[in-house]
Amino acid sequence: MRASRFFISTLKEAPSDAEIVSHKLMMRAGMIKRLGSGIYTYMPLGLRVIRKVEGIIREEMNKAGAIELLMPLVQPAELWQETGRWDKMGPELLRLKDRHGRDFALQPTSEEVVTDVVRTEVKSYRQLPLNFYHIQTKFRDERRPRFGLMRGREFTMKDAYSFDRDVEGMQKSYETMFNAYVNIFNRFGLKFRAVAADNGAIGGTGSHEFHVIASTGEDALVYCPNSDFAANMEAAEALPLIAQRGAATQPLTKVSTPKTTKCEDVAKLLGIGLDQTVKSIALTVEKDVDGRQVRENWLLLLRGDHELNEVKVTKVPGLKDFRFASEAEIQEAYGTVPGYLGPIGTKQPVNIVADRTVANMADFVCGANEADYHLTGANWGRDVAEPVVADLRNVVEGDASPDGKGQLAIERGIEVGHVFQLGTAYSAAMNCVYLDEKGQPAPMQMGCYGIGVTRILGAAIEQNFDDKGIIWPDAIAPFELVLCPMGYDRSDLVKLETDRLYAELQAAGVDVIVDDRGLRPGAMFADWELVGVPHRVVIGERGLKEGNLEYQGRRELEATAVPAADMLGFIKGKLGK
Amino acid sequence: MRASRFFISTLKEAPSDAEIVSHKLMMRAGMIKRLGSGIYTYMPLGLRVIRKVEGIIREEMNKAGAIELLMPLVQPAELWQETGRWDKMGPELLRLKDRHGRDFALQPTSEEVVTDVVRTEVKSYRQLPLNFYHIQTKFRDERRPRFGLMRGREFTMKDAYSFDRDVEGMQKSYETMFNAYVNIFNRFGLKFRAVAADNGAIGGTGSHEFHVIASTGEDALVYCPNSDFAANMEAAEALPLIAQRGAATQPLTKVSTPKTTKCEDVAKLLGIGLDQTVKSIALTVEKDVDGRQVRENWLLLLRGDHELNEVKVTKVPGLKDFRFASEAEIQEAYGTVPGYLGPIGTKQPVNIVADRTVANMADFVCGANEADYHLTGANWGRDVAEPVVADLRNVVEGDASPDGKGQLAIERGIEVGHVFQLGTAYSAAMNCVYLDEKGQPAPMQMGCYGIGVTRILGAAIEQNFDDKGIIWPDAIAPFELVLCPMGYDRSDLVKLETDRLYAELQAAGVDVIVDDRGLRPGAMFADWELVGVPHRVVIGERGLKEGNLEYQGRRELEATAVPAADMLGFIKGKLGK
Repeated sequence: MRASRFFISTLKEAPSDAEIVSHKLMMRAGMIKRLGSGIYTYMPLGLRVIRKVEGIIREEMNKAGAIELLMPLVQPAELWQETGRWDKMGPELLRLKDRHGRDFALQPTSEEVVTDVVRTEVKSYRQLPLNFYHIQTKFRDERRPRFGLMRGREFTMKDAYSFDRDVEGMQKSYETMFNAYVNIFNRFGLKFRAVAADNGAIGGTGSHEFHVIASTGEDALVYCPNSDFAANMEAAEALPLIAQRGAATQPLTKVSTPKTTKCEDVAKLLGIGLDQTVKSIALTVEKDVDGRQVRENWLLLLRGDHELNEVKVTKVPGLKDFRFASEAEIQEAYGTVPGYLGPIGTKQPVNIVADRTVANMADFVCGANEADYHLTGANWGRDVAEPVVADLRNVVEGDASPDGKGQLAIERGIEVGHVFQLGTAYSAAMNCVYLDEKGQPAPMQMGCYGIGVTRILGAAIEQNFDDKGIIWPDAIAPFELVLCPMGYDRSDLVKLETDRLYAELQAAGVDVIVDDRGLRPGAMFADWELVGVPHRVVIGERGLKEGNLEYQGRRELEATAVPAADMLGFIKGKLGK
Repeated sequence: MRASRFFISTLKEAPSDAEIVSHKLMMRAGMIKRLGSGIYTYMPLGLRVIRKVEGIIREEMNKAGAIELLMPLVQPAELWQETGRWDKMGPELLRLKDRHGRDFALQPTSEEVVTDVVRTEVKSYRQLPLNFYHIQTKFRDERRPRFGLMRGREFTMKDAYSFDRDVEGMQKSYETMFNAYVNIFNRFGLKFRAVAADNGAIGGTGSHEFHVIASTGEDALVYCPNSDFAANMEAAEALPLIAQRGAATQPLTKVSTPKTTKCEDVAKLLGIGLDQTVKSIALTVEKDVDGRQVRENWLLLLRGDHELNEVKVTKVPGLKDFRFASEAEIQEAYGTVPGYLGPIGTKQPVNIVADRTVANMADFVCGANEADYHLTGANWGRDVAEPVVADLRNVVEGDASPDGKGQLAIERGIEVGHVFQLGTAYSAAMNCVYLDEKGQPAPMQMGCYGIGVTRILGAAIEQNFDDKGIIWPDAIAPFELVLCPMGYDRSDLVKLETDRLYAELQAAGVDVIVDDRGLRPGAMFADWELVGVPHRVVIGERGLKEGNLEYQGRRELEATAVPAADMLGFIKGKLGK
């Protein structure tokens, strides 16, 4: 490519609405252009990166036996009603009506459509397993689109759907996809981590997220450096921090703690460790019992220094549809105000659930269910009945790994992929069945597998940038190499050598752009450093008189003189071609 | 590709809603699957063809200097309001609201968005010319979607937009695109014709349609076999069929023609040629004159054997916004009922426009403006004032070519591309200006260039099929070649030879599929003939014992024995590789 025939449009300053590095750099490098909130035009440079990302995904999906098709963006409501998602999904599902008033949705994913394809096309066990995927525009009407391509409304996603005869088959398909994802992210040249994830409402046995590691990532990833344990914060099991409960040594005592509603302040006031305090979180569950609406009070107990993990709460039997109690409900159930709740002496009956660590505490401090008072020396069994015990908290750095192989570490990541064992959630709802060897119908076991194609761009930049701009990995760079001739229009020597090298590089399959725009060196270098092309060769008269060109990698601080005759081989070596 | 790892799903019968050959065959071959009215999933086989079509378009567009980007599908109403198209376009523009109630459209084309990109990115004449294109999903909410991919609602289109400093530049960009289109359609391997087209409401000087020739095509294409004259029916100029008007020889006579309202019946009744009769078509034009609504009567005159061309009517000064007169209006203006109108003795004043041929007729027959009566021996100048003369009719086969180089021929075509000189219609409305050498702002001159990617599939099939199925041209076939082993699972000899040839063909860059599904020969051949793979090699034990394989082209009636050792070279020769 010649820069004079391409479109390059860089900015000195990022627009003020760009909040994070990748958004700022993509705007400044002219990779994307905002059309509306969360809606971007992919400019020529950005589109080249997208195409490379898509190309790698496509190759690895095909290699893994998945079959590409293309499902429509505009999807009839009827299919979404069959699975109930038409009603269940909130306003992020963009609904529209056609000229005849019929309802449609813009697809955020395609479970319904692919299941409809398979239920009409596949009749026999002989046709299974199958895995269909497409790389297609998606729309999700985010409440607050932000961060450029990270949380846009219109975006590109690869979504794949596997169909199997049984759970074993589904697990095999899942593993195949998992391995394909590992290959894909390795080929991108990004540092990533696959972590076990929560399955959410759908259930099933397996789900992993693929995260690009970046200190600016929204998600906390938990892993054990000594083993292959890795999970996201929602799914990471927290072991009890106290192996065995000690004996009660203190009497239960009511102490005055005026205007002291936080565990930190109570510990300070009483001169004890935060790890001696217990915080109480009041929940409400509304149930329909024989047509009557019943309200249950639940109290969760966490050690003062721990954080509640709401996903884990939903796993406690009875708490699937919990909500936090209102102040009025708290007053009614506990006879006091928030900040002084505790498990002992509640006004109404309350279901008590203690975190694993809290369940092993003795002589602990908790609210007295009376404003401005706490209890010290509280003990299970003696002062209050033994609680239900559950894992309720987020793990913290240094916790023991659930696999017993060391201590947990935490790093930040950006979720760019998700693989999911769906089981029969969709196939049962949509009657997607096959006939087995005996002619008996059975619902297919499904899996789904997504990669946020456009989000990869943002994540790759969050992981790879410096104060000059983006640093693309070779495999997904808009160009692998830029040739920067010094005086292409003025010097025959420079032009001749540039054109020769350009032709050779092209013939060798190098994705090269030559900057023939006639810019001054400073402006030219700044453009390509901002755009993030990973390799650069400068062709100048001075160097050429000694037979040399200058190579510089995007992460390198200084250029290296390379004999002109050796440059092709040198570049091929750098690119592994 | 191995068929066992691909998805092939053919049908014996097409669904009943498939009306035309290409729709039927695409459904039967499992290339597309209906999701809703005018909305199709592109199944794996169909998607392969689409990708090949896109690939050829992309290569030729890039070669022609156009730059690829990707503009969003969901576009904010504000831009469409700037050009007035938000209000002007009918319900085929699908409008929707996001969660905040803001208006958006699903793009049918992207003039507004690309003009917005360019007006903010381009400031100087130095940055021009520019040509941006994308290959993107479009939505057009057709009133009556039909014919499969021919007139769908969701479809894929390549649309390009050129921006130039002046008209000469625009014309050069237009010519470049025209030539790129010729290359594209040649590479598809389709018989096509570029015809001059009407510019419609936008005006400007140039517009051509690209049609795939097919006897089932919706459009009539007019061309001169001896020259390069070619136009669509709307735009093809009709010369007068009578060089000079003869002298009046008959007196004007009122003759009784009871219940004879059609020229054919009048001619039969009077025993004259249809080419002696003139048919009258009453129009109404409503105008606002100084705030008053004024109604004008117009009468168009065509020779009895000719057809009205409504596009040409709009070109007659004063008739841009014509409509056909109602029966009440006819009664009021002519004092009679339709079927007996004529230019002589109207009740109210009427503007008379005669087709060029009618203007040169003498002693003609026309309605008497009285029910059940016609006039014979009517003559211009003597019986009625000389009319306004215009080209009002469709040309017919055998007409003289407007370039004087022979007689016109007519064939049918399917429109798959359109190139258009827009001028400043969009740039002026959206203030898309550049600064010229003197620093003066001027609106950019634009062109737009579309190709209906998915429609190409339908058109290619309409041109290339037989009673067995589709016959794809090599360049856009889902696979170039199918290997049909007879007993792949039973015969080691067959398997060995199949695998060897398959590997060699793949290494040679042949897009080959091997049918390892274990079907019986009849079913296997029928599948591939239906799908339309253009080349087939059969590997059988009997042939192999003599060292031979069998080659058969999709259009050939019999197979040719080719020595196994020569087959690779033979195929490469067939495919020009």
